[in-house]
Amino acid sequence: MTTNVLISLNSPYSFWQLSGRHAEHLRSAFPGVRFRLAEEHDVPVEIRAADVYLGWAFNTEWLKAPARLRWTATPSAGVDHWPVAALDAAGITLTRGYGYHGQPMTEHAIGLLLGFSRGLFESSRLQARSVWWKDDLAASFFDLYGQTLTIVGCGSVGIRLAEVAQALGMHVIGVRREPPPPEPGGIEWVPAHCAHEALARSRAIVNLLPATDGTRGFFDETTFKACGPGAVFINLGRASTVDHDALLDALDHGRLAGAALDVQPHKPPELDDPLRHHPQIVLTPKSAVFSHAYMDRAVAFFHDNLRLFLANQPLNGAVTPTNGGPRDH
Amino acid sequence: MTTNVLISLNSPYSFWQLSGRHAEHLRSAFPGVRFRLAEEHDVPVEIRAADVYLGWAFNTEWLKAPARLRWTATPSAGVDHWPVAALDAAGITLTRGYGYHGQPMTEHAIGLLLGFSRGLFESSRLQARSVWWKDDLAASFFDLYGQTLTIVGCGSVGIRLAEVAQALGMHVIGVRREPPPPEPGGIEWVPAHCAHEALARSRAIVNLLPATDGTRGFFDETTFKACGPGAVFINLGRASTVDHDALLDALDHGRLAGAALDVQPHKPPELDDPLRHHPQIVLTPKSAVFSHAYMDRAVAFFHDNLRLFLANQPLNGAVTPTNGGPRDH
Repeated sequence: MTTNVLISLNSPYSFWQLSGRHAEHLRSAFPGVRFRLAEEHDVPVEIRAADVYLGWAFNTEWLKAPARLRWTATPSAGVDHWPVAALDAAGITLTRGYGYHGQPMTEHAIGLLLGFSRGLFESSRLQARSVWWKDDLAASFFDLYGQTLTIVGCGSVGIRLAEVAQALGMHVIGVRREPPPPEPGGIEWVPAHCAHEALARSRAIVNLLPATDGTRGFFDETTFKACGPGAVFINLGRASTVDHDALLDALDHGRLAGAALDVQPHKPPELDDPLRHHPQIVLTPKSAVFSHAYMDRAVAFFHDNLRLFLANQPLNGAVTPTNGGPRDH
Repeated sequence: MTTNVLISLNSPYSFWQLSGRHAEHLRSAFPGVRFRLAEEHDVPVEIRAADVYLGWAFNTEWLKAPARLRWTATPSAGVDHWPVAALDAAGITLTRGYGYHGQPMTEHAIGLLLGFSRGLFESSRLQARSVWWKDDLAASFFDLYGQTLTIVGCGSVGIRLAEVAQALGMHVIGVRREPPPPEPGGIEWVPAHCAHEALARSRAIVNLLPATDGTRGFFDETTFKACGPGAVFINLGRASTVDHDALLDALDHGRLAGAALDVQPHKPPELDDPLRHHPQIVLTPKSAVFSHAYMDRAVAFFHDNLRLFLANQPLNGAVTPTNGGPRDH
């Protein structure tokens, strides 16, 4: 029987859309598979005939009609908006993407770190009105070389980030629930329950934690008190993993020198949200994963998984209710 | 006869001052040498008894009195404020420092590049007043991965910068008067007369040219017309190597997407200088070489050279009127 693949990857941004070129690539690579491209509003009907669904989102309602669906895939790294338990109960495999978020997120994280450590944000604010702001920068800059970066939730994204941080001469600590064995010259792995000791040694902290029950409010008052002094905190994970009142307090008491948040509790934040107006906070609009190479890489990942699916082999990036994602990715 | 070394390394910034710890290190390493630390205003008298002078600046007047001086050294990379010809005519060796400017300048350059490519400067400007600026960033960001960086005046600083750019997945072109032989996987070397072709292929351009007669106005209208479209231009070299009217024109006509200037034609720039107020320009106050490790590294460099001097061997970093600095450094 022909395998039907339904794809709905629409986005206001061209780099997150499936293009005609991508569809052509899949059709020529899998001539025996029927690919159907759908707009979001057609998915509820189209999904009834699909064996495979590739999309940005999934509505639990779609499970009510009798369906052939066996596998749903998303290019996203995070699946916190997906009905993981419902899909599992329905016997439908869910996979998330990995391996291609690391590059743009690394560029984003390193840019934010250096923006603080070199005083670049401060400089761009002062250049229009300060007579000469050299003293300001001399008093606040710091070298990244020789300093420690701790990456909390250090999977494949963190490992890519670590490579560049090490090229800059930083020591990198990776915090993970179950750390892998140590490698000489590599990341210093630390289990999650020892995170505070790592944070105390760090001048730079990058949070990549996913949103799960276990990570909610991980960066709370106690955790921020363990940081610094003078550390920069970058959140490219999920807003729910951070207590933002505690973050503001840590900034105001000098434990943190700066914070950059690619995710915020309200999207978009209210215009009077203090996170917008704090002089030591830089907000980015969930743009850390912006990449013009995104869809090429996401389609290549799906291509490999579809080959496995057709051969009845285990899929990459499978997510279950007890495993919020492959631990090593 | 005892060698007298006069050191005058004062600065408003502690990281550019010779500390008591540094003096102690030199005295214990060279027990037969007499070290004298002087404030700037004492140098004109003290220098008459010195065989060696280590300082930030040199006044040609100091050559008038009969003196023992045989070697003057500066920790700076640039010697454009030094009387190179007069020292040469007086038979006094001049050395400049190298090998330790690369790390902070690399952090600075990479931070500025990513600040533009990831829209971080734009984000930090928009966060206080834009409801949601995700579309703005989606329209303007670009990946550094896979893009080409051209480093003009690519010596030891550029080679360090290239390492980090390559770790980010960039292709690096090094422009130099006399390019070294190619190395597989390394920098693509290009002679200065082919610079325009390199700039046309580049999304990122870092200028590290020193101020010499030959580099004046290197980045002029013709050169900027060869750039881009959409390139980011970073000047960490000298302001005299850039025609700033041509730079503004290149920004306003879209050949450049942004420019960062650590050096400006007027220091500090006038408050109404258009360079301060252009939305695509970030100015930093000659802070690219800020590093808390600076003096440790500069003293270590001088230490090695003093050992050579005492052994009557050629010194590292010697500068002559026909050679504005060691070409490979």
